[in-house]
Amino acid sequence: MAVPNVKLNNGKQMPLVGFGLWKVNNDTCADQVYNAIKTGYRLFDGACDYGNEKEAGQGVKRAIDEGLVKREELFIVSKLWNSFHDKERVGPICKRQLADWGLEYFDLFIIHFPIALKYVDPSVRYPPGFFIEDNKTIELSKTSLETTYHAMEELYDAGLIRAIGISNYTGALILDVERYAKHLPQTLQIEHHPYLVQQDLIDLCHNRGIAVTAYSSFGPQSFLEMNMQSAQDTPLLMEHDVIKGIAAKHGKTPAQVLLRWSTQRNIAVIPKSNNQTRLAQNLDVCGFEMSEAELKSISALDKDLRFNNPTNYGFPIPIFS
Amino acid sequence: MAVPNVKLNNGKQMPLVGFGLWKVNNDTCADQVYNAIKTGYRLFDGACDYGNEKEAGQGVKRAIDEGLVKREELFIVSKLWNSFHDKERVGPICKRQLADWGLEYFDLFIIHFPIALKYVDPSVRYPPGFFIEDNKTIELSKTSLETTYHAMEELYDAGLIRAIGISNYTGALILDVERYAKHLPQTLQIEHHPYLVQQDLIDLCHNRGIAVTAYSSFGPQSFLEMNMQSAQDTPLLMEHDVIKGIAAKHGKTPAQVLLRWSTQRNIAVIPKSNNQTRLAQNLDVCGFEMSEAELKSISALDKDLRFNNPTNYGFPIPIFS
Repeated sequence: MAVPNVKLNNGKQMPLVGFGLWKVNNDTCADQVYNAIKTGYRLFDGACDYGNEKEAGQGVKRAIDEGLVKREELFIVSKLWNSFHDKERVGPICKRQLADWGLEYFDLFIIHFPIALKYVDPSVRYPPGFFIEDNKTIELSKTSLETTYHAMEELYDAGLIRAIGISNYTGALILDVERYAKHLPQTLQIEHHPYLVQQDLIDLCHNRGIAVTAYSSFGPQSFLEMNMQSAQDTPLLMEHDVIKGIAAKHGKTPAQVLLRWSTQRNIAVIPKSNNQTRLAQNLDVCGFEMSEAELKSISALDKDLRFNNPTNYGFPIPIFS
Repeated sequence: MAVPNVKLNNGKQMPLVGFGLWKVNNDTCADQVYNAIKTGYRLFDGACDYGNEKEAGQGVKRAIDEGLVKREELFIVSKLWNSFHDKERVGPICKRQLADWGLEYFDLFIIHFPIALKYVDPSVRYPPGFFIEDNKTIELSKTSLETTYHAMEELYDAGLIRAIGISNYTGALILDVERYAKHLPQTLQIEHHPYLVQQDLIDLCHNRGIAVTAYSSFGPQSFLEMNMQSAQDTPLLMEHDVIKGIAAKHGKTPAQVLLRWSTQRNIAVIPKSNNQTRLAQNLDVCGFEMSEAELKSISALDKDLRFNNPTNYGFPIPIFS
């Protein structure tokens, strides 16, 4: 079935399933994006920090040039990295990222983390990452989240971005955005899988008209290759009996069950895959219905276990504590 | 031994042990405060929300009138309630709270929660609590945390408060305060006990010169009487073998070990007790030293288990998610 859209609070439509560009290799990225479009993907979730925006843009261009898709049928997402939070940096970096993609606007531009780091000039290092040159020290910027948010609103007003997102924001930060925003954020993107459900945060957003996108829907899986101890110590969701049982019952893969657990609760997902079969399967996660009891049995796996925490990578920035 | 002070980042001294006024009954409050001063307490941790500031002030006045203590030897703490976050409400309510106490200044005034609720006039309901009149609905104010913080800074500049505190703020909020503050906060007050250690948050504050005060040092104990299920389901820290074993070894009570676990790590504590023996014992929690291994074995009880979360009381405000 076609991927349904979620209607954002500004009237725009966002596909409920997209392709996530985190950890997509530079040498395969253009082909993967092109191929994903061919497979039916319309949303691409990128970021400065992923270091592959040029290549992703090449894939998009090829698909458009070949007439597979029109620009207006795509929903291209990018993110503002931490070291570009200063008011005067937001516009220029967004324009650079648009140029990298070869686009005139982003459908959604997201504040990647509620962390303002000191500016690093792109000619010095790009993407800049968390640390300054010595690879040990973090330097913060003097810019508040409100200031950065207003700079995002200027991009929105100028038409360079068609929706504003926030990511890795907790409840108190979301309430605070709502206090100071001229335009409410359209989306929140968070780590979300059965080991980290955060239903109250999702309810808060849905009750306030903020759409939610889940990243790392497969839980520990994404973090194994990064040698994260907590991921290595946690049973894989794909191999969990609860997930496998429900998958078997519906004739779906565990991955599809994990994704459907989100989409059925109106939470967008952005998996990636290098494998054509799985690529197609991941897109097909809106066409079957689990029972309320099945959804609950998946949510009951909650351990409040977060993997993508800056402190887990050695960055001394406990934004979630 | 005398209670040591912690030096705040503005040069003021704050006692490392104080008396917490949460849940102190109105009919005994004045006597309890008076008696605590007699026992040697110098810091009193109050709040609008505790509903006993007048009575606490009566206890203070009696002690001063009798020459037990001078005002300048006391360290009086109060807190700004959520419904007074609007810029124009901060000054008047602080002055009202000072009048209730019979004081000319607070040594420390704290933003109680990072939650801005709609103003409730004190003549309508005081303290106002979380809900509006129907006892079901929360109404938020339009005021950002930065706006409220700047209003606190005005009180500070006017000499009505001698230090600014924040409470129940998470790491990302603290980094954001640091971005927009004219005067850095002097203290953070958080729930802190061996089931909720949050060492990275404490390190963040200590590294940035923000003193930390622990509340609910005894963990589930404080929440039993509030019929909180998670507290009822959790073994009491006072009866935990690890705590009892260390207490026996040092000839101290489990409560003293729990408090010392904080003070030895330079975290202030604010227990309360209705019992004279325990009142004296709670104050005597800086005169023995646990080994590094003992401190670690206590910290190893961490379950990341928070009791004092607005969502646990049915308030739909997931500030910690």
